[in-house]
Amino acid sequence: MTAYKTIQWIDGAVRLLDQRLLPHQIVYVDFLDCLSLSQAIREMVIRGAPAIGAAAGYGIALAAAHSHKTDVNALRKELYDAADILRTSRPTAYDLFNAIDRLLERVNDPSLCTIQAIQAATLEEAHAIANTNIQINRQMGLNALPLIPDKAKIIHHCNTGSLATVDYGTALGAVRTAYENGKQVHVYVDETRPRLQGARLTSWELRQLDIPHTVIVDSASGYFMRTVGIDLCLVGCDRIAANGDTANKIGTYNLALVAFAHGVPFYVVGPTSTIDMSIFTGDEIKIEERPGEEITHIGEYQITPDGTQVANPAFDVTPARYITAIITERGITRPPFVKNLYEMMSS
Amino acid sequence: MTAYKTIQWIDGAVRLLDQRLLPHQIVYVDFLDCLSLSQAIREMVIRGAPAIGAAAGYGIALAAAHSHKTDVNALRKELYDAADILRTSRPTAYDLFNAIDRLLERVNDPSLCTIQAIQAATLEEAHAIANTNIQINRQMGLNALPLIPDKAKIIHHCNTGSLATVDYGTALGAVRTAYENGKQVHVYVDETRPRLQGARLTSWELRQLDIPHTVIVDSASGYFMRTVGIDLCLVGCDRIAANGDTANKIGTYNLALVAFAHGVPFYVVGPTSTIDMSIFTGDEIKIEERPGEEITHIGEYQITPDGTQVANPAFDVTPARYITAIITERGITRPPFVKNLYEMMSS
Repeated sequence: MTAYKTIQWIDGAVRLLDQRLLPHQIVYVDFLDCLSLSQAIREMVIRGAPAIGAAAGYGIALAAAHSHKTDVNALRKELYDAADILRTSRPTAYDLFNAIDRLLERVNDPSLCTIQAIQAATLEEAHAIANTNIQINRQMGLNALPLIPDKAKIIHHCNTGSLATVDYGTALGAVRTAYENGKQVHVYVDETRPRLQGARLTSWELRQLDIPHTVIVDSASGYFMRTVGIDLCLVGCDRIAANGDTANKIGTYNLALVAFAHGVPFYVVGPTSTIDMSIFTGDEIKIEERPGEEITHIGEYQITPDGTQVANPAFDVTPARYITAIITERGITRPPFVKNLYEMMSS
Repeated sequence: MTAYKTIQWIDGAVRLLDQRLLPHQIVYVDFLDCLSLSQAIREMVIRGAPAIGAAAGYGIALAAAHSHKTDVNALRKELYDAADILRTSRPTAYDLFNAIDRLLERVNDPSLCTIQAIQAATLEEAHAIANTNIQINRQMGLNALPLIPDKAKIIHHCNTGSLATVDYGTALGAVRTAYENGKQVHVYVDETRPRLQGARLTSWELRQLDIPHTVIVDSASGYFMRTVGIDLCLVGCDRIAANGDTANKIGTYNLALVAFAHGVPFYVVGPTSTIDMSIFTGDEIKIEERPGEEITHIGEYQITPDGTQVANPAFDVTPARYITAIITERGITRPPFVKNLYEMMSS
């Protein structure tokens, strides 16, 4: 897996593996300014909440590195503007806003008195976010390990692997840890319409890791729970409210309801940087509506008749009552989430 | 809608509208023998339980019309062989077997003493199945009318319109009757992976009927129930067991579970010819596994990495307890289905 890097800082450029072309082409694209990087996030060259967060961090570092300002406060002003641009990339994933806030806090450090100092500090902070992300993912994998039985049949939604993070993955990282610890797992990979992150990206990652898997259509999860029997569901998250309501890729809520009806444990795996304690319920999470072409077309192939109206929410909110546990780098949090998330985040 | 005919008998040929090419191309294909017709059913040139039933009826008539036999019992034997071929077309839809049984019963009528008499009788029976189907569909639409409130927001799965029947449709026929009776309905059209019957066919039919609709991905049904509010779900059926368990297009079960969790009524609309009183539960229904290419490719476009393993069950079984009512041409049947389906079928 490590042969392909989702996001890198190379000589003053942010290099992204273009995920729109996977699994058929391996194309790296270098971004030299924060506006084009923001555009790339919007167009899903890179996606996945932790990966977006890391990219946003590097976006500020990029703006600092390429600035022509000679005055530190003028540079700070320029970086606030860069932050505003990056904030508009996509609305739902909390990591994005978290990373930008971390960068701006660093920018505002009054001890940074030179352009070079601010440039160095922003890059250091962006690197820290990226590197910490990998450690966090490995820790989440270890924390989830007791929840994954040997020979587990797992349904996984969307992509939460190396491609969705900086490396290793969140929910897919948990699968990986289980596999690396000798557990013979089998992953039922939801294809994840409309962008097919499961069919395109998760299958590609699992293949390289030699982890057994079968791609299924999203609507077949109930069929497989009834027939082959599924032991657990693992999903990532884009934003978790204080009460445990979880925004994640469209289809997560349906999968949670189907799992609930079958008594199949439904686990959310994500770093604490996706937990937004400023909102009490998922109703406050803004859900991105994406272009209709994601549904009407696949590649160049048009599916629907010309002019067909579509609705394409990119995420949904799964109410906390359908979530068995939330696994973060700090451990396993179980209901009641209102109390237990608060305690975990305050500790 | 009537401009395009799903299935016709034209001068000794069965003419099918090739549904694999819709909505982009209108191509009619004439079949002159029962083997190629069976192949066409398998490859889904035509699909939808009632349409398959009608096609199978015409398949026997086709074999009779083109027979070179000069002895009536030799012809009968040839038609039994034709029936055996047609039975292997697809395993799940009960209409197929029902139609073949009806045709063979007619073939076995001892009063048919000439080749011409058998040819005429089989064609008459095939026409009867086709023509009755349209009347049945209109009656089901009327029967379902009280269940569809004005301004209803409806989720509909797969395609159950004219294309899935001979004309008018089952579940989509109910939508059509409601619309024709002045009810302002809005249909949320599940795209229905992997074959995209909703996105390709249902949207095409609704567009021609001017019935307002929005295409959504299958996994978004819960999102729309939570946000815009959905009043009811309407689906067709391929086979209903005596206890009400219903086999239908993959994804029906998930939709039923999601509807159940939201208290949204879930209605199955289908003719009594889909009710198989010879099996007690849905566990006895054979579920067709279709080629993996339906998931790995869309048109010429390859989605998954080379060699990815997929599982592609074409149908699932929705347990009776998640079904609010079954609407047939004889009326509305509600739980307990074990008792009420038996009474309805015996009446």
